[in-house]
Amino acid sequence: AAHGARKMEGYRRFLALLASAVLVGLASVVISFVWVLHYREGLSWDGGSSEFNWHPVLIVMGFVFLQGIAIIVYRLPWTWKCSKLLMKFIHAGLNTTAMILAIVAVVAAFDYHNTGNIPNMYSLHSWIGLIVVIFYALQLFCGFAVFLLPFAPVRLRAALMPIHVYSGLILFGTVIATALTGITEKLIFALQNPGYSESPPEAILVNCLGLLLVIFGAIILWMASRPHWKRPPEGNAKILTPIGATPEGTEVESTMTNSINADKSDLSSNTEADRKQNIKFDESGQRTAM
Amino acid sequence: AAHGARKMEGYRRFLALLASAVLVGLASVVISFVWVLHYREGLSWDGGSSEFNWHPVLIVMGFVFLQGIAIIVYRLPWTWKCSKLLMKFIHAGLNTTAMILAIVAVVAAFDYHNTGNIPNMYSLHSWIGLIVVIFYALQLFCGFAVFLLPFAPVRLRAALMPIHVYSGLILFGTVIATALTGITEKLIFALQNPGYSESPPEAILVNCLGLLLVIFGAIILWMASRPHWKRPPEGNAKILTPIGATPEGTEVESTMTNSINADKSDLSSNTEADRKQNIKFDESGQRTAM
Repeated sequence: AAHGARKMEGYRRFLALLASAVLVGLASVVISFVWVLHYREGLSWDGGSSEFNWHPVLIVMGFVFLQGIAIIVYRLPWTWKCSKLLMKFIHAGLNTTAMILAIVAVVAAFDYHNTGNIPNMYSLHSWIGLIVVIFYALQLFCGFAVFLLPFAPVRLRAALMPIHVYSGLILFGTVIATALTGITEKLIFALQNPGYSESPPEAILVNCLGLLLVIFGAIILWMASRPHWKRPPEGNAKILTPIGATPEGTEVESTMTNSINADKSDLSSNTEADRKQNIKFDESGQRTAM
Repeated sequence: AAHGARKMEGYRRFLALLASAVLVGLASVVISFVWVLHYREGLSWDGGSSEFNWHPVLIVMGFVFLQGIAIIVYRLPWTWKCSKLLMKFIHAGLNTTAMILAIVAVVAAFDYHNTGNIPNMYSLHSWIGLIVVIFYALQLFCGFAVFLLPFAPVRLRAALMPIHVYSGLILFGTVIATALTGITEKLIFALQNPGYSESPPEAILVNCLGLLLVIFGAIILWMASRPHWKRPPEGNAKILTPIGATPEGTEVESTMTNSINADKSDLSSNTEADRKQNIKFDESGQRTAM
């Protein structure tokens, strides 16, 4: 009951930030559509500019927005009554979708280059972009193997969780940085008469898109790094309760523990026993989200 | 004595990462010099291209390298026997130097534009760059007023420390992202015959500079976010010891507390009493850095 009645500290601030993140994220997606549909050649899959245009749209939708939501999905307090396993599937599903969209985005860019005899992989944008897609796939694979499949022992999960969290946040930040270099490239190449330096409306709009991506990233990283907004531990969290901690100590732990560090409940193995424990817990404890 | 004998967990890994960060950071500085001295017009202050060239050199040296070192300076274990106040001065001094170099870098770019009748502030690079310099100055001012001057009450310090740490890390990441957009711009504009897309040696070299900046940022952010590499609390750390924690609890706290969160000893006010306490402590407790 003590667990179930746990309230989220600063719930209103959390909601306000979540609303801002969703608003800024969706605004970015809308602006990327306005960019390619109104100012550029639209969308198609014919090897021309309108195929390339899928690149910014899918990157903003998938690699930025969906990845951002995937990062904070465990922290939505109304999901705290759902089983951890379900949340892992949602986290993995969102990240998988983001990766597929990113890969299609990369294919669109390559296809456009190849059709137009434009060299591939010469720019800093392409170098960092390709590296980040490869590392993102690796992160997804490792996360799946270690945290979703039931084989990895608790000690391994505990050892890898801080690396998983750190890698996820660094990859997210690097994706946004890479998007900024992509915007820079595209505006320089595409804007002629008037050029980029004459600040036509398209340049202003897409610069604003870049700013919104930075703001979206900053909100997500703030939300993801507040220790008191972590999903409360459950299941076999006891294993890691610090020596000498009183029952209050457990409460303190859940608000003080490094969020960049392991969420204790992430470290539970997905055994049948654990699942039963979760179900029992879900039935007995009504978590209030306010 | 229990405090003084505290050893740094994973000291060798810390040293290896520090060496990598310094190596990658210095390599970036060297490459930026090679870029402007060997491939570009060199360095001078005449409004021409060789004045602009101060821009990348000073950004890499000051805004990236020095800022990165400033971020992790509290974590160098051989400084743990120095007073917190001294370390604050070093942290503030490094950041002030970084800001001055960044401002000179911005002036060089504006001067070059104005001399050559090139418009200012039209690109995403210039927008984010200017915003980040302004926020960096604000961060420095607030940090000075709240954490260095002895006037702010402990509660205010405690409330603002997580924001200070978060802002510092986000600004550092955004500076690197902005540097990547700057590299992209400059290579597109400057490389003609052969152009950027033909991958001349200069393009490869400066793309590598961009990669090194990302690696430098990733190492610094890892080092800055490991809870067990935090400077151990001292002074009136007791104030924030969690309710119900035993003496072991204090130890646990210092290794488990969110590093993105407040360093408890940062929250001490710089009163005469505190300073005396620090001095007494420095004399009594020999910290071993191994």
